[in-house]
Order: sequence, then structure tokens, then C-alpha cells
Amino acid sequence: MEFRITMAGTASAMPVKGKNQSAQVLSVRGRLFLIDCGEGVQSRLVEAGIPMMKIDSIFISHIHGDHVFGLFGLLSTLGMKGRRIPLGIYAPANFGPIMKFFLSYYGDGLGYELNFTPLAMKSPEMVFESKSIEVLAFPLNHRIETYGFLFREKEPQLNVRKEAVATLGLSLTEIGAIKRGEDVVRGDGSVIYNADVAYRPYSPRSYAYCSDTAPFPQLPEWVHGVNLLYHECTYLAAYEEQARLRYHSTTLQAAACAAQAGAGKLVIGHYSSRCRDPRAYEAECRTVFPETWAASDGDVFEIPFIKAK
Amino acid sequence: MEFRITMAGTASAMPVKGKNQSAQVLSVRGRLFLIDCGEGVQSRLVEAGIPMMKIDSIFISHIHGDHVFGLFGLLSTLGMKGRRIPLGIYAPANFGPIMKFFLSYYGDGLGYELNFTPLAMKSPEMVFESKSIEVLAFPLNHRIETYGFLFREKEPQLNVRKEAVATLGLSLTEIGAIKRGEDVVRGDGSVIYNADVAYRPYSPRSYAYCSDTAPFPQLPEWVHGVNLLYHECTYLAAYEEQARLRYHSTTLQAAACAAQAGAGKLVIGHYSSRCRDPRAYEAECRTVFPETWAASDGDVFEIPFIKAK
Repeated sequence: MEFRITMAGTASAMPVKGKNQSAQVLSVRGRLFLIDCGEGVQSRLVEAGIPMMKIDSIFISHIHGDHVFGLFGLLSTLGMKGRRIPLGIYAPANFGPIMKFFLSYYGDGLGYELNFTPLAMKSPEMVFESKSIEVLAFPLNHRIETYGFLFREKEPQLNVRKEAVATLGLSLTEIGAIKRGEDVVRGDGSVIYNADVAYRPYSPRSYAYCSDTAPFPQLPEWVHGVNLLYHECTYLAAYEEQARLRYHSTTLQAAACAAQAGAGKLVIGHYSSRCRDPRAYEAECRTVFPETWAASDGDVFEIPFIKAK
Repeated sequence: MEFRITMAGTASAMPVKGKNQSAQVLSVRGRLFLIDCGEGVQSRLVEAGIPMMKIDSIFISHIHGDHVFGLFGLLSTLGMKGRRIPLGIYAPANFGPIMKFFLSYYGDGLGYELNFTPLAMKSPEMVFESKSIEVLAFPLNHRIETYGFLFREKEPQLNVRKEAVATLGLSLTEIGAIKRGEDVVRGDGSVIYNADVAYRPYSPRSYAYCSDTAPFPQLPEWVHGVNLLYHECTYLAAYEEQARLRYHSTTLQAAACAAQAGAGKLVIGHYSSRCRDPRAYEAECRTVFPETWAASDGDVFEIPFIKAK
């Protein structure tokens, strides 16, 4: 029942020593999602011991090279390793011709299908859904069309307190209704209030990926209450003007978003190549949002599964 | 006056832990040549402290992904870093559409010209020439059109022994003739034989890059006498059939080529992803050609400059 994010690349446009370009892996309940695909992602996966053959889907925020140039090699390697099951790719519509070109040159004998879902939305929309997980995509505010992603467990079915079943002598029909969140009105007119006998067996966990983006008013609202917010943090606060011009964010802007969103934790990355020590970024963010963590390549962040008692 | 080869990637089609895909940097007399461009080459350059902005030209052997997927990121980074001088790219003709596609999507504001020289030759032909260096390209024997490269210092002008100048009272005209390699016939009918008074100030150094290829008869002849031969060595000898089917070489085949070519040293790489320890490859090669060295990522091979006395 893991919910784990591995940082496979925390550099921005240019790689620096020890930092690859943007890529992350989210492992949730046995599914592997790859988020962005900076150059060298294959090697990072190998280093981190993440089984690349088990990648379920790939989510691409935008087509800037530092977010996609690792994709071709990865797709080729999966083919060589014998992948046969289709691979989902969620990316902006302008990624289509890139994929078409890749397939025309390198697609021979790839051995598996690429299912491309072009993204084009103005506000959060669900793009992926399984029994227990859903992924929403939403637009960010970058120089080119860019999307963020919210990965979350679905709201679980309610459980009924064991003692209530016994005390009240609940029937199977009544239990079913309570699990669906309903109150129960009995034949004698008495009411069993849902809140009194039902409980949420666990809190659904969530992770939001927001890179690359300048601040914009809707973002904190769209990721409200997220357990872990990854927000790009290309610049220290002193470079606000540069951030504005390039549609990126500073430390204080990333931290403000986390605070306004009521996020549990903030993880930052996508540091400018000027960044010598991410801890300076972390320190600035913490002045606004204390629960900030500056990611380095290879870092793993885990959201614990907390069972209700 | 360096002549130095840095191994930036020694894996074959699939990257494995600690091994990137094919890429090498040749630094010769202050010029930097990049040879093949496997994914992650930018990061390797940064790690090796090689100034990527000073790359003079890029030589691509063939368009298989493990030899080119690092190129897009590198070209983009050079642009971001402010490169303005043109960059030469020598690659098979079928690389043309790949470059065109890259430029159509990512070329905006690249800031420098790419000078593409399509390769198409049946035997060694000079493709690059400077005052002191020349590069020859020649076809290899792979599944798709593939070229090897021979980098060498030009034959230096002869020097005249100082003592001969004094003893024989050589005139400037006579010195000029001797430097051009001529004998001198004097007015009195006496002959000054070139070999008696001239010497080669240094032995020109040479490096040959042969990846990917199955053995073929002309190769040892085309790289004859090379100081350092890099020959791909994808398989151990036991996998000869596999090598044949995939147009690759085994240890013994690479070593036989080096022996037949009279190479000074053999460096091997492009190991199959099965390879756990390159020293097993090295040991097999040494049974045929003792001066074999199995390269690892980051290794540096230097050909010393030896001045004649």
C-alpha cells in the first residue's frame, strides 16, 4: 500500500553535477507512474532499482527538452527488454508530432503500443482512473502549454463500526446504506445517523506535481489539501524578476502556494543551474512554509498509509 | 599537445548501472571532438570537467538511439549557454531528417548554426582537416549505415639536424628542400641525402573509433598502424553467433582486428547489458592481443607526445 515518490532528476534546463533533468516516479499501490522524462531517466531508474518494465503510464507536463529528452531512450529500452503491454502517455497535444516522428524512425519492432492521450483542459479534469487511484490534469502557467498532475487515492467506502452492528442489530441492507454514506430511517421512525456509526477506514493520500509554472491564483485551490505538493522552485527569492520573465517560481512563491493550498508538505526542485546548495532554497521556503523539503536526485518521499482506528 | 580520449559511455543498447550509452570525447591539440552521443552525455561531460562549450565538432557513427539520443539535450544546452560559433556535425545522410525535426521543434533561438556533413563513402575519405589534424571516415559493417572515424595528426614537416647545418654549411634554400623531404645535389655534384640530415620531429598520433561493427576484411587495413584502436566488443567469445546475427563483434574478433592492424593498443567497450565485469572481456581479448584495455565510463586514455631526439 505504498505511496512513494522517487526524485529521478531535480535540475532545470541544464544538467549539473549530480543533478539530472526533471523526472519523477510515483509508486502507488503497486502501480508505477513516470512523471516527466528528462535525459538520463533510464539510468536513474536503474540506479534506484525501479523496475522500468513495470511502468504503467507516463505523464509529460510539457515538451521542453529538459522534460522529454529522456523519453526516446526509455521507450526504446522497454522495447528491447520485451515489453508487450501498451504504455499510456499523457502529454500536451503538441507532443503528438514528436511521438509520431519517434515512431517513424525508431518504432520498427518496438513491440508494444503507445496509447497517447492529448491533454487540453482549462481546469482540473480526470485523465486516468483505476479501482483505487485517479489522476487529474490541470493547466499551469508556463511559456508554453504545460500541465500539472494530481495523483490521489479515491475516497474509500465507509466502514461500519463493529460495536454499532451488534448494538443496533443492523441488517445487511442497513449496512449497505451506511457504507454508501446514507442515514438509515427504520420502520419505527428512528434514525441512525451515518456519522454516528460509519468511519473512513483510511485517509486517501494525494500528490501534486507542478512544474514548470509561474504562480497563478487558481493553483492553490486546485491542489487544496494535498498531502505532498511538488512545486518547481527554479529561483531564490532575489531572482523574482527573472522568474517572472521566464514563467517560473521563486522559493517564496512556491512556499506561498503550499501555504495557501494547506498542503501537508512541500517538496521543491527544478533548481536553476546557478544553485550550488538546495538547502539555501529550502531555508527560504521554510520562512513561509516550515514543512518544506529540498529534493536531491535519488531522494524518496513516502506518504504513510494511516489506518483509522 | 594532448591527445586524450575520455570514455563518456561504455554501455551498448541498454544503459546499466554506472554505464551510459556510447559517447567519447577526443581532445587533441586543444580541439574537442565528440564521438557519438548516447543519452546522458551532457551529464558525463559535466562530471568529467570537460568544457562542452568548446566542442568543435560532433561525429555520429549511426542513428541507433544509443548513439544519438543524447544529442538533442546537448545541442539545447549549448544554445542556453550562449554558443554562437557554428557546430560541425558529421553523420550518415539518414541523420538529416532527425536534425531537421529537432530544429523544427527545438531550434528556435538556438543561437548557432549546425553545419551538417552527410557521410557516404565506400572507403576512407577525409572529412575534416585543420592545420595539424585530419579526420577520415570509413564504412563499418553494421545492420544500418554506420561509419568509423580515424583521427590523426598530420605528418609533420621534417627538421634538419643542427649539427648538419653547421658541418655542411647548408644554405636556406638547401634547408628548405631538406625540410620538404628532398635530397640536395650541390654544384660540385655531391649529394646530401635527406635521410642523413633530416628527422621527423615527432611521430604523428592516431586514434580510430570503430563502433558498431561486425568484422570485415578491410577494417584492419584501413586503421593500420593506429596508436590506439577503439573497437566495439559487445559480446564474449561464446556469443559469436549472436554477434554475427546482430552485426556486432566478440572479444576475439576485436582483438584479431587490433593484431592484424598492428595497433599500438586496443580499447574495448559497448558491452552487452549482460556484462557484469569488463575484465572478463579484457582477459579474452588479451589471449590474442595483450595490449587490450577494457574501458569503463570516465576512463581517460592518453597517447603521449614523443619528441624525436
